[in-house]
Amino acid sequence: MSNIKASIITIGDELLIGQVIDTNSAWIAQRLNDIGISVLRRVAVGDTAAGIKQALDEELNNASIVLLTGGLGPTADDITKPFLCNYFGGKLVVNEEVLAHVKSIFVKRNRPFLDMNMKQAEVPDNCTVLFNKIGTAPGMWFEKDERVIISMPGVPFEMMSIVEDEVIKRLQQRFISDPIEHRSIITAGEGESFIADKIKDIEASLPESIRLAYLPSTGIVRLRLTATGNDREQLSKLLEKFQGEIAHRLADIVVSLDDIPMEQILGKALMEKSATVGFAESCTGGYIGHLITQVVGSGNYFKGSLVTYANDVKENVLGVSKKTLSEQTAVSEDVAIQMAKAAQKLLGCDYSLSVTGILSAGGEENETNPVGTVWMAVAHKEIVKTKKFLFHYDRPRNKDVAVQMAMLMLWRFLNNKM
Amino acid sequence: MSNIKASIITIGDELLIGQVIDTNSAWIAQRLNDIGISVLRRVAVGDTAAGIKQALDEELNNASIVLLTGGLGPTADDITKPFLCNYFGGKLVVNEEVLAHVKSIFVKRNRPFLDMNMKQAEVPDNCTVLFNKIGTAPGMWFEKDERVIISMPGVPFEMMSIVEDEVIKRLQQRFISDPIEHRSIITAGEGESFIADKIKDIEASLPESIRLAYLPSTGIVRLRLTATGNDREQLSKLLEKFQGEIAHRLADIVVSLDDIPMEQILGKALMEKSATVGFAESCTGGYIGHLITQVVGSGNYFKGSLVTYANDVKENVLGVSKKTLSEQTAVSEDVAIQMAKAAQKLLGCDYSLSVTGILSAGGEENETNPVGTVWMAVAHKEIVKTKKFLFHYDRPRNKDVAVQMAMLMLWRFLNNKM
Repeated sequence: MSNIKASIITIGDELLIGQVIDTNSAWIAQRLNDIGISVLRRVAVGDTAAGIKQALDEELNNASIVLLTGGLGPTADDITKPFLCNYFGGKLVVNEEVLAHVKSIFVKRNRPFLDMNMKQAEVPDNCTVLFNKIGTAPGMWFEKDERVIISMPGVPFEMMSIVEDEVIKRLQQRFISDPIEHRSIITAGEGESFIADKIKDIEASLPESIRLAYLPSTGIVRLRLTATGNDREQLSKLLEKFQGEIAHRLADIVVSLDDIPMEQILGKALMEKSATVGFAESCTGGYIGHLITQVVGSGNYFKGSLVTYANDVKENVLGVSKKTLSEQTAVSEDVAIQMAKAAQKLLGCDYSLSVTGILSAGGEENETNPVGTVWMAVAHKEIVKTKKFLFHYDRPRNKDVAVQMAMLMLWRFLNNKM
Repeated sequence: MSNIKASIITIGDELLIGQVIDTNSAWIAQRLNDIGISVLRRVAVGDTAAGIKQALDEELNNASIVLLTGGLGPTADDITKPFLCNYFGGKLVVNEEVLAHVKSIFVKRNRPFLDMNMKQAEVPDNCTVLFNKIGTAPGMWFEKDERVIISMPGVPFEMMSIVEDEVIKRLQQRFISDPIEHRSIITAGEGESFIADKIKDIEASLPESIRLAYLPSTGIVRLRLTATGNDREQLSKLLEKFQGEIAHRLADIVVSLDDIPMEQILGKALMEKSATVGFAESCTGGYIGHLITQVVGSGNYFKGSLVTYANDVKENVLGVSKKTLSEQTAVSEDVAIQMAKAAQKLLGCDYSLSVTGILSAGGEENETNPVGTVWMAVAHKEIVKTKKFLFHYDRPRNKDVAVQMAMLMLWRFLNNKM
């Protein structure tokens, strides 16, 4: 791991009562890693001066860089700015550049500028202002005892903009650190312990400078190799040697050597084949289409998704047979096949995928089709393949798994691995 | 805040390099809050004994209950179990009940049982085993100096199952704590400072026992009132008095008094009207359908969503005019109107909504339609209303905002507030 350590402190009662999921820390950690700074700890505390003080005191002992997010809004529950000003012995003064910017935002949004918004333009006189071009709360950069303390708003896109525009370059100027390199092997269809057993001799042969981590998620296990050193090129070479060995050993189950999500892996496979794709979704409600279109450039291969949730829509839009629906119910192999074929035709796509199932109680479940039953079909020209799944979780989780399995099934079908 | 304090420690290098977003902490915090235990701090550390030890030492000073998640897998990077065993001075022994369960999972999943899986059945002899009915890593409950330490796997659904089945009831038996009560007011369409100014006299009149927090997110500001005391009924009464005052003052912009997501607010409104709904989505790719179907019972009002990403699909499936598409491009008021009308007809729904826009560069942007332009239309019988938006963020964020705005627009249309 690198010699330059950072801690992240996130501030807000909403984090402690679970009203908000902290996505900022993971994003900041990634960006710091990119420039060779490793995150040692992440701490979340409430909107109290005592809580912030304790965390800041502790993390200044742990790390050279402490990043804080949150508590910079204009309302009474936001106390980070006066706290920090006081902590570092400064006083709050109006910053004219920030004031002009805050006012311009209110004009642009057609909102009245209130007295309390004036507070947004006040900054401690002992910090460097980190300009927030898309929001009203400026970031602040303090230095104390060779340590750097950076405070930013908690609104994710404002924080991201300040990190990209202001923080990264300043940290790079201030600290010179060894690069950290990662390489990944993404596998699908086998468990963590099966994989560990299969590569145990390779794992045992790893030099001390390389760490191997197993990151299981839905249907997928990601293996991550990490190394730090002063020679990036040499690190890369070494990591790639072991990445290659592991990938070769696990050839049957490797889906990617880039740590990218399944929708992007699928997108790359479709681009390579210059093929288009479309879906007919029932229980997944449009989730597959949503993920596929998260990828920039998905317009090159994605035609559309016919989300036919109600049975009459399956009949009227897709032309699924009324007889099949009533005799075999919507959750059946035949309906999945008819849906996939109809999607192919209506959307004019090379490959299609359909999903129909029961994700939670209160649907059409019965003895043949208990809750969690999902039928999927993939089609290309005259070829149709089907698969039945049974998931055991709650509704959102069953949907997540179904969508991941659907994308994996399509990826295998595309690569003749089904 | 309550007298019983908990800290949450999440363990895993993947959290510190930003590969994984921590959703466990928020979920655990919510469940603890429900039983009157407040979370004081959340700390994330890497898979190192030194890091875990420091966090555990510190949090045992801060809180009566320390919950740990992660690092319980069978592979070499998972060190939490031997660490805890050692920390509390026990030794690892095979637990026969856990062993039988782990073996049964391997049989069920049709996977070979490996030597290293034997380790999953080992538990410290000085802990109470918290049975993990859906996974192989058991939870552990330690007690030391009047404090409770709970270790659970990091896989979210396994952790959740252990909390629900084992942890909650044990904590309730072990600690008696004052209830914490929350009440919310969910608003849409105005900013945090506008709202704060409008209710400043009410905020000033809040008794010390009540805290008010502002939680801004996409197009929405949630206000949360929090109070603790020993009389739950009295607390509720007091909170509801202020909730009522604030809601009355903000009547124009209140969308809900329950802190539920927009898709659920919309679902309730549709159920009240016994109305059905359907969508025609382009740039949102199915995201609206996905969110709507996250709600249990959405089958009662959701018919489907026609995701027509490619222009030829807009023509062939929805019957959007080729002429309009070529003269006005897909991102135009006319196309939005044709899409909404077609969805209403094809899906046979009472209300429909359409979305068409450009979320990131490289699409059909031009001078009239810069990146971020989105047209939406809502339709009911012969009435169609449209709205043009311009979003300024990156692709995923623009999609998020567009989807929230679409649901809000539909909610307003349903409630004659448009």
